[in-house]
Amino acid sequence: MPLTDAAPHAAAPFRHTLRVYWEDTDAGGVVFYANYLKFFERARTEWLRHLGVEQQAMREATGAIFIVTDTRIAYRGPAKLDDLLQVSVLLRQAGRASLVFEQQALRGHTLLAEGEIRIGCVDAGTFRPRRIPNSILDVLA
Amino acid sequence: MPLTDAAPHAAAPFRHTLRVYWEDTDAGGVVFYANYLKFFERARTEWLRHLGVEQQAMREATGAIFIVTDTRIAYRGPAKLDDLLQVSVLLRQAGRASLVFEQQALRGHTLLAEGEIRIGCVDAGTFRPRRIPNSILDVLA
Amino acid sequence: MPLTDAAPHAAAPFRHTLRVYWEDTDAGGVVFYANYLKFFERARTEWLRHLGVEQQAMREATGAIFIVTDTRIAYRGPAKLDDLLQVSVLLRQAGRASLVFEQQALRGHTLLAEGEIRIGCVDAGTFRPRRIPNSILDVLA
Amino acid sequence: MPLTDAAPHAAAPFRHTLRVYWEDTDAGGVVFYANYLKFFERARTEWLRHLGVEQQAMREATGAIFIVTDTRIAYRGPAKLDDLLQVSVLLRQAGRASLVFEQQALRGHTLLAEGEIRIGCVDAGTFRPRRIPNSILDVLA
Repeated sequence: MPLTDAAPHAAAPFRHTLRVYWEDTDAGGVVFYANYLKFFERARTEWLRHLGVEQQAMREATGAIFIVTDTRIAYRGPAKLDDLLQVSVLLRQAGRASLVFEQQALRGHTLLAEGEIRIGCVDAGTFRPRRIPNSILDVLA
Repeated sequence: MPLTDAAPHAAAPFRHTLRVYWEDTDAGGVVFYANYLKFFERARTEWLRHLGVEQQAMREATGAIFIVTDTRIAYRGPAKLDDLLQVSVLLRQAGRASLVFEQQALRGHTLLAEGEIRIGCVDAGTFRPRRIPNSILDVLA
Repeated sequence: MPLTDAAPHAAAPFRHTLRVYWEDTDAGGVVFYANYLKFFERARTEWLRHLGVEQQAMREATGAIFIVTDTRIAYRGPAKLDDLLQVSVLLRQAGRASLVFEQQALRGHTLLAEGEIRIGCVDAGTFRPRRIPNSILDVLA
Repeated sequence: MPLTDAAPHAAAPFRHTLRVYWEDTDAGGVVFYANYLKFFERARTEWLRHLGVEQQAMREATGAIFIVTDTRIAYRGPAKLDDLLQVSVLLRQAGRASLVFEQQALRGHTLLAEGEIRIGCVDAGTFRPRRIPNSILDVLA
């Protein structure tokens, strides 16, 4: 899942920086693999915020929430306590009801994990798929 | 906070058994201390279920949810991957809007953590304190 | 990733049962998607234990640990607080240094999540890939 | 546990800012209470880093790690998705083998949680209590 052939939906991937704390590690002495899903989500959330979208406000205004429908992650190397990680967000595909992202976690130039995350838009009450609110689609266009 | 001088609110503490998985550990090689709050809650949930109370059903029927308002935990020894733990639940005090529990986590006869947890009843929508539903109070009496 | 065309490495998939607690949920009111990776791992751990393999003991005896190298998950439906889930484990492929599993999480007959997890064997100190210990390979054969 | 009568071990409490993400919330729609222990620890970690101490480096150089031995938390109000929280760190007491902190989590001027955390120093291999390394004690003095 290299980023090199990515369509130019964004000029350059958005980057979010985060620190590895005790809570993120496991008895292997490294970051617990499931936590990269959290790291990737933090980065997507900050990317949305950077575009002016707050998800709590979106839910209150439109009744819609984003949910994760598919994830694919490849783990390339371990991260340790105190490491400073950069997590990238590249919007690969934007449909009317779903978004596909390519994301990577790096420590300096070392790739630690990369993956593809598909997001769907659903009604917060029923969890039925629905169109992404126009106000959000306009921002992503 | 020994259980030995506990008032006889219950003939014997309820016990829930659980296994330590990778997700529970940290880079110290042992169970991450914050996770004992999760273990204690699993045991309280199973104690409630044992009394016939399911919290999701309680919420749907009454609009009330239990929230944790105070916790005090002392950590006595480390637990490791694959350990089998017993978590006890003793209802120490039952008021009209709150409950106080004494809980311990043990591996065999080795005490690993013990604490006191105070629970309050709130409206699920407003988070305002409210009386515990009568159907629940009856069960706890 | 249906299990129906799975090669008969095992007569039937192993199943692990678990309960959904508050800790597993998020503000969408359902199980947080990253936690299915934890559920899948609990099931693989119990499958190994069922075969006589304890990972802490394996590490102490051989210096080897299993790590997750690739995950692919599709989320099919939400799970809620108090739900009882069955998580299946099917060993799809067993190499000398890696294992591939197909796993599903179900509530009754409702499929909630399914995925493919690739595991590698590494030296616990260096994280360099190594052969799965013979004592483990014998059990998996 | 008000900070107002705190002994002047530090001129003013250190503050760490963090954002609430989906991973931090539960089905009550608010931050899961156990996660305040994580928030408090992130703040202590950043306070130590601010003083020049990295815990991974401390472990590699001295063989010592800090562990949490006692926690007492009072929950005062809920935090929601997207909230920006300030977490304070006040070193209340510094012994040769343990430290006691008073900490608060606030959203603006609203107190959400406060507590007292006791930390001990142990040998990373044996988990036996030991003196805090002199290089660290010098920094805390």
